[in-house]
Amino acid sequence: MNFRFELDEILSLFPSCEIDGSTSVKLIEGIASLEKAKAGDLSFLENPKYRKLVDESRASVLLLPQDFDGTPSENQLFIKLSQPSRGLALLCKLLEQKLFAPPPAGIHSTAFVENDVQMEENVSVGPFCYVGNGVKIGKNTQILSHCHIGNQARIGSSCKIHPGVRVLTKCEVGSRVILNSGVVLGSEGYGFDQVGGGHEKVPHLGIVVVQDDVEIGANTCIDRARFDESRIGKGSKIDNLVQIGHNVLIGKGCLIVAQVGISGSVQLDDQVIVGGQAGFAGHLKVGKGAKIAGQAGITKDVEPGAFLKGNPAMPVQLAHRIAILQRKLPELFNRFAQSDPNK
Amino acid sequence: MNFRFELDEILSLFPSCEIDGSTSVKLIEGIASLEKAKAGDLSFLENPKYRKLVDESRASVLLLPQDFDGTPSENQLFIKLSQPSRGLALLCKLLEQKLFAPPPAGIHSTAFVENDVQMEENVSVGPFCYVGNGVKIGKNTQILSHCHIGNQARIGSSCKIHPGVRVLTKCEVGSRVILNSGVVLGSEGYGFDQVGGGHEKVPHLGIVVVQDDVEIGANTCIDRARFDESRIGKGSKIDNLVQIGHNVLIGKGCLIVAQVGISGSVQLDDQVIVGGQAGFAGHLKVGKGAKIAGQAGITKDVEPGAFLKGNPAMPVQLAHRIAILQRKLPELFNRFAQSDPNK
Amino acid sequence: MNFRFELDEILSLFPSCEIDGSTSVKLIEGIASLEKAKAGDLSFLENPKYRKLVDESRASVLLLPQDFDGTPSENQLFIKLSQPSRGLALLCKLLEQKLFAPPPAGIHSTAFVENDVQMEENVSVGPFCYVGNGVKIGKNTQILSHCHIGNQARIGSSCKIHPGVRVLTKCEVGSRVILNSGVVLGSEGYGFDQVGGGHEKVPHLGIVVVQDDVEIGANTCIDRARFDESRIGKGSKIDNLVQIGHNVLIGKGCLIVAQVGISGSVQLDDQVIVGGQAGFAGHLKVGKGAKIAGQAGITKDVEPGAFLKGNPAMPVQLAHRIAILQRKLPELFNRFAQSDPNK
Repeated sequence: MNFRFELDEILSLFPSCEIDGSTSVKLIEGIASLEKAKAGDLSFLENPKYRKLVDESRASVLLLPQDFDGTPSENQLFIKLSQPSRGLALLCKLLEQKLFAPPPAGIHSTAFVENDVQMEENVSVGPFCYVGNGVKIGKNTQILSHCHIGNQARIGSSCKIHPGVRVLTKCEVGSRVILNSGVVLGSEGYGFDQVGGGHEKVPHLGIVVVQDDVEIGANTCIDRARFDESRIGKGSKIDNLVQIGHNVLIGKGCLIVAQVGISGSVQLDDQVIVGGQAGFAGHLKVGKGAKIAGQAGITKDVEPGAFLKGNPAMPVQLAHRIAILQRKLPELFNRFAQSDPNK
Repeated sequence: MNFRFELDEILSLFPSCEIDGSTSVKLIEGIASLEKAKAGDLSFLENPKYRKLVDESRASVLLLPQDFDGTPSENQLFIKLSQPSRGLALLCKLLEQKLFAPPPAGIHSTAFVENDVQMEENVSVGPFCYVGNGVKIGKNTQILSHCHIGNQARIGSSCKIHPGVRVLTKCEVGSRVILNSGVVLGSEGYGFDQVGGGHEKVPHLGIVVVQDDVEIGANTCIDRARFDESRIGKGSKIDNLVQIGHNVLIGKGCLIVAQVGISGSVQLDDQVIVGGQAGFAGHLKVGKGAKIAGQAGITKDVEPGAFLKGNPAMPVQLAHRIAILQRKLPELFNRFAQSDPNK
Repeated sequence: MNFRFELDEILSLFPSCEIDGSTSVKLIEGIASLEKAKAGDLSFLENPKYRKLVDESRASVLLLPQDFDGTPSENQLFIKLSQPSRGLALLCKLLEQKLFAPPPAGIHSTAFVENDVQMEENVSVGPFCYVGNGVKIGKNTQILSHCHIGNQARIGSSCKIHPGVRVLTKCEVGSRVILNSGVVLGSEGYGFDQVGGGHEKVPHLGIVVVQDDVEIGANTCIDRARFDESRIGKGSKIDNLVQIGHNVLIGKGCLIVAQVGISGSVQLDDQVIVGGQAGFAGHLKVGKGAKIAGQAGITKDVEPGAFLKGNPAMPVQLAHRIAILQRKLPELFNRFAQSDPNK
């Protein structure tokens, strides 16, 4: 990753840092890991177990913990911080704004915005966007190219809506929400009545509500509720290609990793963590702080704080124990055959 | 979910209903479950086991079975129907039309339609749609924003094509089909010849055929066939994020839940039900009415009417029995160690 | 599949072929398998085990191996080739160009291309495409409708970018790359710092690099790296709905089947094959030529050439052996109960 950043600008981010070494390199031109960094780069020590790599790093500037006791090499500068990872985050946030220039405010000449849309100041509506009747959009929100914001939808302030997102009719998005490319909010719920051997559609009249500070990954789909709402709670982070069915309620601060599938009417309490490709049968309740391992299959309610794995899911320790014993099955069958008194 | 609906309008939907209680509430402003309904709402009893909730419901109007023997509270009206769930469906269908106003017929000013496209009456082509050469579209079909209808594609009548759908070159869609946002019909099949250590593309020259009354969920992909067609049979319902490979043939009235993966040349007979995240190896045949549990891995042909679970898949009863015994493996190993005559 | 192809045109593709039978059918109107072919069609024998089907085939023209010893029926022509499957591929490639006419070169009237874009000759930019600042596109590349090519992105020559693809800011695509509809390159990586009980975003400042001759399936997502690049190596083929996390490095000539999920920082060496719906935990290394069965769950590094299956994954022979023994668990528990000396 290449860019140009004055050393002074970096130092000004950390007014209370301690510095050690040379400030001879005035221009920083990249960020890289300790091993990959070259002269002119900035690097960092996030995990104490990699301390040794600092000695060998060719980075010109290093973000280090306050108690780091090594010595900078020639033309190298140590910046010591109480929380180097927070310092790095601060720096990256600034870099992000430089590297990914925000689109200009206003409505792109190729976008189509219906007459009765209400937009606060500094909203950007990108190329080929369609914004429907009665939509409201909060200040500083960026909507990139090819998005569809359906009739009566609500979008809060300071959101980033990446290219090709669909926020369908009446759905509601809070503030500081990030929707990655291809997200669909408000697809039709999957529900059918069996009528005369056929499947007759159950209309889904509700909406999707995405609360503040949520992120949703690329091509993830959230179906609208039958009558009221499917909901993603404040601060939850959902990865790419996740399926969230109609009437699902996800609590606050949850992490849902890629390709998870959550069937209709499932409820996740707050701070639940779900590993990639796990699946949930319909109408389950998952307690606060539960953890679900990747690829697990959940078919029953989950207690708060539980950590489950496997399909059918079981406590993770039991799953590990069984996994070990399964590998011993060939031996067990052999020994049993030898010891079988009936043989 | 909020709306405004005259009580008389609701009653006129059910000419043969029996009513009991007060018609004092003239305006219905929402539909909700028995627990959530408040005064002014309509609610319903779908599952007899929730009968008790009727007594406590604050709904102003309730759709109930004919044999329901409770008494409406003050200002409450019971509407008794032979099939309350059908009544609810009828009402919801009407509501759907009110809540999700159909787009105006005609071609949106921002759409681009090639010269030789044939459209029957009352077709709607939404903002930023592209409709290619030689396309034919049947009457009353709605194509929402940002859709691509490829050259020589065919779309039947009364379809609803949600924003951002791609119906690629020559693919054929029947009548009354619903395609949710982000559906791709006709992506290139995944097939390669091994040539000199590399993977050389096998061109896929066929099409995708989607028959009448099919629904396809958001971001689902169906690859085109090598020579003839990949096909979704009449009335089958496919959920979100499903992968359907080249040359797959799906019968009539199947239900394919979210994130299922069906490899190339698999054939599903009619009325097959597949749970979420199940996967099929290539070239398999699945018999009529078979059921496949969620996350199952199918690697062999499946008999008609079979119900399989697990990976490798086995009859569901056996899978359940083994799941129980697996949890007893630690105990079995312990007991075996104790009884082992060789120890 | 229907088309019109002169027999002479077909024969001219195979200057060194040997022919046997009648050249009376001058116009070929379809390609089909041996069973499905009718008079006027061309068919082929790819797999020697279907030799018998040749006798019954009604195809007018058949591509056969040089050592095929049957006799053509009346009005039937055998074309004998040293490699019939290569011959078929050659023919299909020609057909593909006829059936899927390339879009005209140039920028469609509805597309929007920023001023400082550099395009080589014969590039096609389709309807409603947006091409951002500083983009470079190589010669003969086709970009179909509704694509977003982000600022400073690079696209090589002779690529086919299907409708609705997003190549986001700064991402790099090589030459002869095929991106199917809905592909997202450069979505934000999924990484968060835990700060005060909440999840604080880790900015992802890197890019996605897709090397030459790669194909990527519909609605597949590849996240951008934290600092440097997520990379898909030359000639690798990725199927539909695959998730590839930030900083993943995929080697050359890999095959990744549909719905696979690869977590952040995983490294796949060259020629790795991954079956559908398999999943990888983060930060793993997978050796050259390893094979991973469908639905496997990989949580540890994988040796070169290994063939793993199951979750937790194990060598495929062991997995098969255990799968067989698992089905015998009911019997084992019964026999153990009988033989238990403590009972």
